[in-house]
Amino acid sequence: LRQGIAEVIYGAGKTAEQIAGIVEAMKKRGQELVLITRMDPEKARHTEELLKQKFEDGAGFRYFDGTGIGICGDFPEKDGVGTIVVATGGTSDIPVAEEAALTAEALGNQVERLYDVGVAGLHRLVAHMDTIMSARVIIAIAGMEGALASVIGGLADCPVIAVPTSIGYGASFHGVSALLSMLNSCASGVSVVNIDNGFGAGYLASMINHMKG
Amino acid sequence: LRQGIAEVIYGAGKTAEQIAGIVEAMKKRGQELVLITRMDPEKARHTEELLKQKFEDGAGFRYFDGTGIGICGDFPEKDGVGTIVVATGGTSDIPVAEEAALTAEALGNQVERLYDVGVAGLHRLVAHMDTIMSARVIIAIAGMEGALASVIGGLADCPVIAVPTSIGYGASFHGVSALLSMLNSCASGVSVVNIDNGFGAGYLASMINHMKG
Amino acid sequence: LRQGIAEVIYGAGKTAEQIAGIVEAMKKRGQELVLITRMDPEKARHTEELLKQKFEDGAGFRYFDGTGIGICGDFPEKDGVGTIVVATGGTSDIPVAEEAALTAEALGNQVERLYDVGVAGLHRLVAHMDTIMSARVIIAIAGMEGALASVIGGLADCPVIAVPTSIGYGASFHGVSALLSMLNSCASGVSVVNIDNGFGAGYLASMINHMKG
Amino acid sequence: LRQGIAEVIYGAGKTAEQIAGIVEAMKKRGQELVLITRMDPEKARHTEELLKQKFEDGAGFRYFDGTGIGICGDFPEKDGVGTIVVATGGTSDIPVAEEAALTAEALGNQVERLYDVGVAGLHRLVAHMDTIMSARVIIAIAGMEGALASVIGGLADCPVIAVPTSIGYGASFHGVSALLSMLNSCASGVSVVNIDNGFGAGYLASMINHMKG
Amino acid sequence: LRQGIAEVIYGAGKTAEQIAGIVEAMKKRGQELVLITRMDPEKARHTEELLKQKFEDGAGFRYFDGTGIGICGDFPEKDGVGTIVVATGGTSDIPVAEEAALTAEALGNQVERLYDVGVAGLHRLVAHMDTIMSARVIIAIAGMEGALASVIGGLADCPVIAVPTSIGYGASFHGVSALLSMLNSCASGVSVVNIDNGFGAGYLASMINHMKG
Amino acid sequence: LRQGIAEVIYGAGKTAEQIAGIVEAMKKRGQELVLITRMDPEKARHTEELLKQKFEDGAGFRYFDGTGIGICGDFPEKDGVGTIVVATGGTSDIPVAEEAALTAEALGNQVERLYDVGVAGLHRLVAHMDTIMSARVIIAIAGMEGALASVIGGLADCPVIAVPTSIGYGASFHGVSALLSMLNSCASGVSVVNIDNGFGAGYLASMINHMKG
Amino acid sequence: LRQGIAEVIYGAGKTAEQIAGIVEAMKKRGQELVLITRMDPEKARHTEELLKQKFEDGAGFRYFDGTGIGICGDFPEKDGVGTIVVATGGTSDIPVAEEAALTAEALGNQVERLYDVGVAGLHRLVAHMDTIMSARVIIAIAGMEGALASVIGGLADCPVIAVPTSIGYGASFHGVSALLSMLNSCASGVSVVNIDNGFGAGYLASMINHMKG
Amino acid sequence: LRQGIAEVIYGAGKTAEQIAGIVEAMKKRGQELVLITRMDPEKARHTEELLKQKFEDGAGFRYFDGTGIGICGDFPEKDGVGTIVVATGGTSDIPVAEEAALTAEALGNQVERLYDVGVAGLHRLVAHMDTIMSARVIIAIAGMEGALASVIGGLADCPVIAVPTSIGYGASFHGVSALLSMLNSCASGVSVVNIDNGFGAGYLASMINHMKG
Ligand SMILES: Nc1ncnc2c1ncn2[C@@H]1O[C@H](COP(=O)(O)O)[C@@H](O)[C@H]1O
Ligand SMILES: Nc1ncnc2c1ncn2[C@@H]1O[C@H](COP(=O)(O)O)[C@@H](O)[C@H]1O
Ligand SMILES: Nc1ncnc2c1ncn2[C@@H]1O[C@H](COP(=O)(O)O)[C@@H](O)[C@H]1O
Ligand SMILES: Nc1ncnc2c1ncn2[C@@H]1O[C@H](COP(=O)(O)O)[C@@H](O)[C@H]1O
Ligand SMILES: [Mg+2]
Ligand SMILES: [Mg+2]
Ligand SMILES: [Mg+2]
Ligand SMILES: [Mg+2]
Ligand SMILES: [Mg+2]
Ligand SMILES: [Mg+2]
Ligand SMILES: [Mg+2]
Ligand SMILES: [Mg+2]
Repeated sequence: LRQGIAEVIYGAGKTAEQIAGIVEAMKKRGQELVLITRMDPEKARHTEELLKQKFEDGAGFRYFDGTGIGICGDFPEKDGVGTIVVATGGTSDIPVAEEAALTAEALGNQVERLYDVGVAGLHRLVAHMDTIMSARVIIAIAGMEGALASVIGGLADCPVIAVPTSIGYGASFHGVSALLSMLNSCASGVSVVNIDNGFGAGYLASMINHMKG
Repeated sequence: LRQGIAEVIYGAGKTAEQIAGIVEAMKKRGQELVLITRMDPEKARHTEELLKQKFEDGAGFRYFDGTGIGICGDFPEKDGVGTIVVATGGTSDIPVAEEAALTAEALGNQVERLYDVGVAGLHRLVAHMDTIMSARVIIAIAGMEGALASVIGGLADCPVIAVPTSIGYGASFHGVSALLSMLNSCASGVSVVNIDNGFGAGYLASMINHMKG
Repeated sequence: LRQGIAEVIYGAGKTAEQIAGIVEAMKKRGQELVLITRMDPEKARHTEELLKQKFEDGAGFRYFDGTGIGICGDFPEKDGVGTIVVATGGTSDIPVAEEAALTAEALGNQVERLYDVGVAGLHRLVAHMDTIMSARVIIAIAGMEGALASVIGGLADCPVIAVPTSIGYGASFHGVSALLSMLNSCASGVSVVNIDNGFGAGYLASMINHMKG
Repeated sequence: LRQGIAEVIYGAGKTAEQIAGIVEAMKKRGQELVLITRMDPEKARHTEELLKQKFEDGAGFRYFDGTGIGICGDFPEKDGVGTIVVATGGTSDIPVAEEAALTAEALGNQVERLYDVGVAGLHRLVAHMDTIMSARVIIAIAGMEGALASVIGGLADCPVIAVPTSIGYGASFHGVSALLSMLNSCASGVSVVNIDNGFGAGYLASMINHMKG
Repeated sequence: LRQGIAEVIYGAGKTAEQIAGIVEAMKKRGQELVLITRMDPEKARHTEELLKQKFEDGAGFRYFDGTGIGICGDFPEKDGVGTIVVATGGTSDIPVAEEAALTAEALGNQVERLYDVGVAGLHRLVAHMDTIMSARVIIAIAGMEGALASVIGGLADCPVIAVPTSIGYGASFHGVSALLSMLNSCASGVSVVNIDNGFGAGYLASMINHMKG
Repeated sequence: LRQGIAEVIYGAGKTAEQIAGIVEAMKKRGQELVLITRMDPEKARHTEELLKQKFEDGAGFRYFDGTGIGICGDFPEKDGVGTIVVATGGTSDIPVAEEAALTAEALGNQVERLYDVGVAGLHRLVAHMDTIMSARVIIAIAGMEGALASVIGGLADCPVIAVPTSIGYGASFHGVSALLSMLNSCASGVSVVNIDNGFGAGYLASMINHMKG
Repeated sequence: LRQGIAEVIYGAGKTAEQIAGIVEAMKKRGQELVLITRMDPEKARHTEELLKQKFEDGAGFRYFDGTGIGICGDFPEKDGVGTIVVATGGTSDIPVAEEAALTAEALGNQVERLYDVGVAGLHRLVAHMDTIMSARVIIAIAGMEGALASVIGGLADCPVIAVPTSIGYGASFHGVSALLSMLNSCASGVSVVNIDNGFGAGYLASMINHMKG
Repeated sequence: LRQGIAEVIYGAGKTAEQIAGIVEAMKKRGQELVLITRMDPEKARHTEELLKQKFEDGAGFRYFDGTGIGICGDFPEKDGVGTIVVATGGTSDIPVAEEAALTAEALGNQVERLYDVGVAGLHRLVAHMDTIMSARVIIAIAGMEGALASVIGGLADCPVIAVPTSIGYGASFHGVSALLSMLNSCASGVSVVNIDNGFGAGYLASMINHMKG
């Protein structure tokens, strides 16, 4: 992360030992905040132990249940221009949403969460019209039919970053249905990142939210 | 069509001569209404001529511009229970919508058209809330991201027949994006027919609309 | 479920604790019947224990072996207009079929099961001609080549809801073969729901079966 | 064709000049029967002219309208063991069926045609039960949902060669739907050739029909 | 299996209890030979125990290591007309090959095995030219590039049944590469069954090998 | 276009008459700038004639050769915050690039074009390092392997909007290769729009470029 | 082309005027040999005329019928180390083969052509065993099942560059079948270029053939 | 491996017993170096034990952690002409890279490793310009967007063998994204092997690197 505020480790293919080692190196370089993504609870517990051996304060490691994310250090001050709204279609999309939200927070952004506002229950979304209209960037996260991005894109006038998720079964094809849906959005201002890529959406949202006029 | 009211000819792979011949045979058998789908204007003009040679009144043939549909005979009385609403996401979906609507009308149904009410402009859809809530069956037709079916399915309490269309470009993959989107709909009461299959949707809607309690 | 008779919990991504919690909340709201889908036996056992701790009568929880379905409360009176027939191509399709059948029963429908009547043994299907001809709605469930929907659609005059299943191997591609087959059905009156979506089919069938003339 | 009775030219990528040239060479080598597949009417007319210039009797060239097939010479005696039945789901499949049937006839087989007996109208198929049960080999040809092969395979006890056709639209994906359906057939004794490959099916059927006990 | 000689149970989705129960029922009906496919060693062991409890001779159950196949009863006399050759491209294809070979043997055929004769080492195939030329039917089994079917089809004059296998990695896509390769074979007389469908190939080969002239 | 500055007509499925009619209506509503995309030269010529009949100044219509774009009215003042860079991998991508660039210009943005700087000739890209580093938003447009987005995303610190194009042959699959490549970009700050969707990219870039600090 | 001997113009998306212009510029820079690929006969004729207006000798332009290739200037001396063999499965693959062969010749290589030696007629291939064994690089070109690359790769000990072609129909999917087949080749020393990319294969073969020991 | 220097065993589908048996047979035939690929640590440990029972020196077996590769015997002298560079986009690609590098070393080549030089951080690649420009063959290995092959192919003048890896998530589709990207490379001199096929790339690179001028 060039912005210097936070460093991110992609935890998926790494052992607890490797992760703890990278955290140690980063901390020694003076990095204040380190975010680790895609870590299952077991690996997180093991990483925590290792960090406790390496640092008196365990490098300030905390694990966010049900998100796959661990963080070492304190969140920075919120220096973004406006608010980033993170919306999901269902509750199963929350891990991806938290990856986006925590990334954005780690990069100094005010984040508002709107979870489980999928289009099959439009009233839940409409109830949050104010939040949507006052956002500076919106991250729309959905699996299955992925219609959320289009509906939000049609309502809001700010950039919408769409994140398809692999949630679903059958013809959702592990996120392909939502991905195609989002790429075909008829609403202007919508762009798309990879399936389940909460980090990428949070990072891009932060970048836009930090642009000076 | 077992219901006896109308017969349908799938015009796509047939010559004007073949179509006129089948119409002639049907008329001779006493069939009052014949619907011909997927006929380009050129073929329609040629069929019309041939029917004028065969019948004094040209078998009552009329062609509906921009729909691919020709009809011989008069629409029957409307004996369905309620109204079938035919909604489209965009104006490019109208030919498929008319295939559905005219099929339903030819089978004796009251049809209400809601065209160009796609989810990127949700207000246009919401403006017709009454129509949606009072429908007995809704046919939701959309290409690109196909979100219309989910949104309508979430609002209405009646069966929704979703028709993906091949309208779009790039990652719409000739209707695949809309098809997957519709199959993955989180709204209950939604089922799907083949890409561009307006006829199938109109037929099924009529079947449901004629069910006695 | 708007119809108020039953509530459904999608159990796939939820823990036993979460499920028991939702059941508790629903029961407190006065909900009489709660259906839980996609629960493996282990999770069901655990849910049962938790419910026994929460309710004297264990909330009336019963688990249906080999179906993934648990039910709290008694089935309502059958107030649908006619009979819903649930047919499968093979015995491996039965879990999906039971999801459909139990959903329909939970919503107050008379259900008749025709299992293992696949088209490779047409005589088994033909032996039940009466059942097929007298159904108000038919749910046709099949994996592999998915031909059942077309054959039934050709025989019956009522709406046929086709459910492709992920049963099969090789070029069945986890339900894609059956899905495409069903979408391409040449029989009129057939529509399709997502692969393995027994619930969606049961719900839609109930909706149609409750329509007053 | 090793069997020496007939030679086949694949006409698709060849000019009339090339085809006439190959026919000439084959005739000079003493070949009595030459079959040319995949020739559009225009190319056939041009080939006919060229052959009239080369041979007094125009090499006995005849073109079969609506099949893409031209033949030079007389059909051989029927020396196969039994009858090859060629069945199609619809009328649009007939060109592929004729490619199969004429190939089989050119190789000395008795052929019986059962066209338009698709499973959406099962009674038309059942009306020909005798023909099906007495066949030595059956070629089942269908586009769209391709269910014909399974149904016939379930009824008959002889080898069934399934030919998917590219007939259809939308989710038929130019024959993929029928192909997958046929590969997944639950009926024993069914094998599959390439989409639209009437020639390959006719050749294999002849091979089997000429096997001595 | 209509031919009465053997019955086959598809073991993949069934428990040992279910399998033993079906075997028992078949034996009671007087069935002499029962073949069970797709049974892992653990399930086979368990089935064996259960059969020992039900029958004094354990119903004659034997399990063939590395093939997934169990058999109850003795192989019948070989009453087929000629020899069925079962050839594989590699050694990993052998389980599928044994499914084909044992099925054919259970149906009364003389089978000759040619394993690991893939086209990347053509000399191994050519060394068995005699076997290939004298076969009545050949089953060509291969994963990866699946070229074996074309090469054998080009050499032999008898029907070739091609079985793609899911062996491979990367762009083999679990058998799709081999499947497409085989469907596109330029050799005449080749037809294809589903990926890994050794049983289907063995059954069809037996059917052809039992045809009387 | 909500921003009021320009209106855009998607010309692909419309006749010249329809386009001229819409322009007329917009002009009557007081719209100063109208952009028409996806218009072939023939349709543009015809539209021009019709507009000359309707307006004395032909509504100020100009057609941009080789881009598919026509414009009525004058470009607005450039009121965006910084510069939008539009980069392409090859010369064949230019029509899509011009759709993006002209859209951005029509919405009041300073645009800089970097065409034919694909990664197979990295030096051409590196020669424009200054332009890349000083951009506020970059639109990276490429077909074939689509690597441009990743390389630019790795170099620049601003948002990169990636547009895959359908340029290529064989395994480019009409833009799928570039689309997947861009979705999988390892560079942060990259998001993707539909294949060939120059308009969408230009619109989103303008939105970001107009955000006040 | 860095090697300086020849320049190549990709003619597919260019007009005759553009091509003639580029040739003129190259010739002025002193380039002796210019190769133009993917030019249809009509465009070639027009280019020839334009070059005749620009150069007295028409820039030495010659068009190779049925290959899409035009050449300005004389082939250079053959300075490669050995011989490049260009083999095709069928006659329809020849245009791609000539693109490869002429590219290699334009770059100073000795080329030997082995056309129509597909694996369904292995004897034709085996008849050229000497040529295959003495090649320095082999380009194996095939559509349909693409088995040629594996068979040649198994026989030869030199690098084999496989070129899938889009020749075929049905399940050849415009070259996908051949592409997958070649990627999965079990023979060592085989690598693959894009579908129909004769130029790329010819260029790489020349590169290898010019490597000094 | 025909070159006689080394033999390779594909370990994926084999048991430790089978592997040890093959090693024993090869050693008895006098083979000095045996490479075993795709062996997990557990299987390697077991193989090691078995080899210790069979050979006093355990057949010289060593396992390379994190690569899946085991080797029996000493690496041969380096007799290749130049250096083979093995480059990867990320650290997760290293197992595939080591398969390529160790294969090349086992075949007598000088190998230089350039790991984690992906295009999202171009400076890391550019820092190794000398290595790239002086290579005789380059193996470019990358997952996700696979752009590395194009960038290296554009920089270097030697043959580039591209290896897509299955590393990634979402729209990487287990290596398909990288595969397509590499097949579409606009850089000349690039060819592709199967996803994750490090062995095939190492073998081909060695073949080229041993060609005498
Ligand atoms: N969940 C994620 N999805 C995609 N990319 C990520 C994710 N988490 C981290 N990254 C990226 O991976 C980089 C770190 O990768 P690594 O050096 O392998 O730990 C970060 O700088 C991010 O660019
Ligand atoms: N097996 C199923 N497949 C698809 N949807 C289901 C299934 N079971 C329940 N649902 C839907 O999921 C909703 C409950 O979801 P949840 O609130 O996540 O438990 C129900 O109202 C149904 O609409
Ligand atoms: N319609 C067809 N589809 C597939 N293969 C065909 C067809 N017609 C002819 N063939 C085959 O093509 C061979 C002749 O090809 P050719 O030498 O190119 O004319 C014949 O021997 C047949 O094997
Ligand atoms: N048939 C072809 N297929 C792929 N690439 C080609 C072909 N012909 C030429 N090229 C490449 O295209 C470049 C020229 O492209 P252009 O500048 O657009 O004419 C050449 O240097 C080659 O790298
Ligand atoms: Mg918007
Ligand atoms: Mg609803
Ligand atoms: Mg029906
Ligand atoms: Mg049968
Ligand atoms: Mg043969
Ligand atoms: Mg960047
Ligand atoms: Mg070789
Ligand atoms: Mg290069």
